Amino acid sequence: MKSMSSTIHQHLPLQSNSCRSTRKNSGIFAVAVEPHHNLMQNGAVRLAQKLSNLVHHHLETPIPNQVQYTDWSLLHKANEVIPVSSPKENVSTKWREIHGAMDYDNLLDPLHPWLRREIIKYGEFAQSTYDAFDFDSFSEYCGSCRYNRHNYFDKLGLGNTGYNVSKYFYAMSHVDVPQWLERSHLVDTWSKDSNWMGFIAVSDDQESQRIGRRDIVVSWRGTVAPSEWYEDLQRKLMPVGDGEVKVEYGFHHIYKSKGEFTRYNKTSASEQVMQELKRLVNLYRSKGEEVSLTITGHSLGGALALLNAHEAAVSIPDLPINVISFGAPRVGNVAFRDELHHLGVKTLRVVVKQDFVPRMPGVVLNESLKIFEELTGELDWIYTHVGAELRLCLNSSPYLKHGFNPAGFHHLETYLHLIDGYKSSKSTFRQNANRDIALVNKACGMLREELRIPECWYQFEHKGLVRNSHGRWVKPRRDLEDIPHNEESMPCFA
Amino acid sequence: MKSMSSTIHQHLPLQSNSCRSTRKNSGIFAVAVEPHHNLMQNGAVRLAQKLSNLVHHHLETPIPNQVQYTDWSLLHKANEVIPVSSPKENVSTKWREIHGAMDYDNLLDPLHPWLRREIIKYGEFAQSTYDAFDFDSFSEYCGSCRYNRHNYFDKLGLGNTGYNVSKYFYAMSHVDVPQWLERSHLVDTWSKDSNWMGFIAVSDDQESQRIGRRDIVVSWRGTVAPSEWYEDLQRKLMPVGDGEVKVEYGFHHIYKSKGEFTRYNKTSASEQVMQELKRLVNLYRSKGEEVSLTITGHSLGGALALLNAHEAAVSIPDLPINVISFGAPRVGNVAFRDELHHLGVKTLRVVVKQDFVPRMPGVVLNESLKIFEELTGELDWIYTHVGAELRLCLNSSPYLKHGFNPAGFHHLETYLHLIDGYKSSKSTFRQNANRDIALVNKACGMLREELRIPECWYQFEHKGLVRNSHGRWVKPRRDLEDIPHNEESMPCFA
Repeated sequence: MKSMSSTIHQHLPLQSNSCRSTRKNSGIFAVAVEPHHNLMQNGAVRLAQKLSNLVHHHLETPIPNQVQYTDWSLLHKANEVIPVSSPKENVSTKWREIHGAMDYDNLLDPLHPWLRREIIKYGEFAQSTYDAFDFDSFSEYCGSCRYNRHNYFDKLGLGNTGYNVSKYFYAMSHVDVPQWLERSHLVDTWSKDSNWMGFIAVSDDQESQRIGRRDIVVSWRGTVAPSEWYEDLQRKLMPVGDGEVKVEYGFHHIYKSKGEFTRYNKTSASEQVMQELKRLVNLYRSKGEEVSLTITGHSLGGALALLNAHEAAVSIPDLPINVISFGAPRVGNVAFRDELHHLGVKTLRVVVKQDFVPRMPGVVLNESLKIFEELTGELDWIYTHVGAELRLCLNSSPYLKHGFNPAGFHHLETYLHLIDGYKSSKSTFRQNANRDIALVNKACGMLREELRIPECWYQFEHKGLVRNSHGRWVKPRRDLEDIPHNEESMPCFA
Repeated sequence: MKSMSSTIHQHLPLQSNSCRSTRKNSGIFAVAVEPHHNLMQNGAVRLAQKLSNLVHHHLETPIPNQVQYTDWSLLHKANEVIPVSSPKENVSTKWREIHGAMDYDNLLDPLHPWLRREIIKYGEFAQSTYDAFDFDSFSEYCGSCRYNRHNYFDKLGLGNTGYNVSKYFYAMSHVDVPQWLERSHLVDTWSKDSNWMGFIAVSDDQESQRIGRRDIVVSWRGTVAPSEWYEDLQRKLMPVGDGEVKVEYGFHHIYKSKGEFTRYNKTSASEQVMQELKRLVNLYRSKGEEVSLTITGHSLGGALALLNAHEAAVSIPDLPINVISFGAPRVGNVAFRDELHHLGVKTLRVVVKQDFVPRMPGVVLNESLKIFEELTGELDWIYTHVGAELRLCLNSSPYLKHGFNPAGFHHLETYLHLIDGYKSSKSTFRQNANRDIALVNKACGMLREELRIPECWYQFEHKGLVRNSHGRWVKPRRDLEDIPHNEESMPCFA
């Protein structure tokens, strides 16, 4: 066991080990966000360089230490006419490495551009589950997806991703997971027990050609503010199967719960996903195609992705499985980690150094006992992370505010922005990072004021109220096609 | 002087005197909102009756004490198909009384239905100045009106009011009034010094016929959260003219400040309004028409309305002037009040009992010295209210939450809802009050959850950001016609 653990540690990129030592003594709220003056000056220089590139001039004179307000203003205007995405390369020759087959050796530091684009693609699938989710507790569809699966990507501005959604899945939980289930205040609702938890999508022919195989994606929705989990969940591990493998109690229940008298969880999320995965894998294998499975999720979604990967690896032999998680908490014990490794599940955990969610649950236990772990080897009751880590730092971006903002640090859009700008553990923010910076502020206020992007701007007009012909403000019915259906009675894609 | 004061006090409706005694010892945050169980039971009965009326049934059986959730649900659906306004009566025979000529004798308790409708009409003019105001500090037009005066009422859903906007006016202040001026974060803005402060509108021929005269309205914008004034402004009175008349320093400066090098306040708000008023009065008098002036405003806007009325009464002889203010603070001393009375300015102050803004400034002074005032008569340095009072109580509405919410108590939409339901100081909420209840929650969360109206729902989609053809989220240019112009170079209406 010991040797296996050290093998896995070798897959971690170098910078993560150096960072790890700084984490040892920090409490959950003691994340230090010191003003890094040198970094900031670099930020100003990089920004001016970027500005210079944008307006097709080259800087000859030294940059003043302080960025002038008008520079930001110019940058903003120059940015507006630059496309947010560039043409996609054919990555088919290298797909197995990008999918983690070599445990990301030589791909993370510096970050390979092909891998960066793929990480962002899956990250945007994960982000879309937040953007599509109906959080409105006065809606009879609270907790569902606002759109049907056929127009899902179009409605969310992801129409050109080259994937089609094949199935939605739903989850419930028999145990009380704090602040997890979004529930309508109304009596007559689409479902009292379940929440929409994500989708399964499949690459179309063109995208499959570009990425070298038929790619099946499972995207698990997370939660936005999971801080309440910490207290309740940190000490509850439960066994999976007959062996030593144990995972966190709350995650397991969301993944596995079902109820005979529910409308959307007569089968569990696990069963819904696994049934569709088996169907799809059989379908494309029967056509002689190479098939891969990529499972993604942010926060809670990243934890569920790992449980899903474990089950898929056990149930579907010889399927290349890759988990790409963002800001995910720890899920299971060391035996769980080792079994995932045995099963060949390849995991890339994207982590922002200042985000405290990846330290949950078990943060106190693990941080304080790390010294014992080094002495004693694995303790099977300790939660542990699995796989390779891509470690990001908020200070690398010149666009982000300094200041303690734990929700902002954890937001997936913050992650995606930092990935887009990440070149290597030693270099500054990528100059030709063209992903729209405004997205960072969709649900937080992390962007510097000079960029003029309003905080928390992702909102619906009048919260969905419209004025009817009688002059009254009412909530219109949802379009029939976007009312949640019971998937079991619906025809499936492909 | 003493007799005059008592004359004015006689104009106060009866219930205000009884309420006044309860206010004597309450500090600014000591507003008591006790659960009035009897009131609430009445509320439940009234609600059930209203529901019964709505669905064209009559109640035969006694109403249970507790309103069932499903009743609210039914109410909500029944409400949706009822127009928010009924046909307007011709009130021309009674216009002088409605305009305050008889100091509202016999019109307030019970509230005359014609007066109720007129109060709400002016209140909606005042409310529109909030709805139209650009609060976005990242907009280059922050502090202006979002729409031009020609489409103003249409854009704000007030197209059928029968008035046309003739002029916008702007204000600045040479003294620092806390949280007053809304300023853009940007360098290049429509104005660095001024804010749009409201509009002057004139009744069209049809409305003039209905209300018995050509009515000129000045609607002053207020502020939403003026709690910071209290500390700074409570002790600063300054003289107006040569006599004893004194008014609050901050209000006076907003009303009178101008600057040679500004774009919108080369003349003060006072000068802009007075110039247009004189022009309009001369225009319609020269046509032999009867003309009236009605000045309205909420909060700060109500205070400025009073200053405006004072100046108009001094400058334009024989013009019937009426101020209808909502939740306005005290403005001046007793000599100011007496002079307004001498000048024939008729004032109706609408006040919600639980709102503390009408006790500002000078709340401490006045509340604690009330006993001295009764002994010594007027002290000219004490702020005092003027005119008649329409006193409302939050507990009268079965739709509102109980609980301390000072911002919600002060919101103009809360006022308008309570006016719509007010019959008399002794009766319950009006059953056929059809003004849309949802409006209450535009900028607060005062409505009971059972009504299913989201809190603070008045918001723009994505805070005005739209996705451009390059995939970037940007703030589009404002329509050319809605970019603020310098009124002096613009042709005026009529």
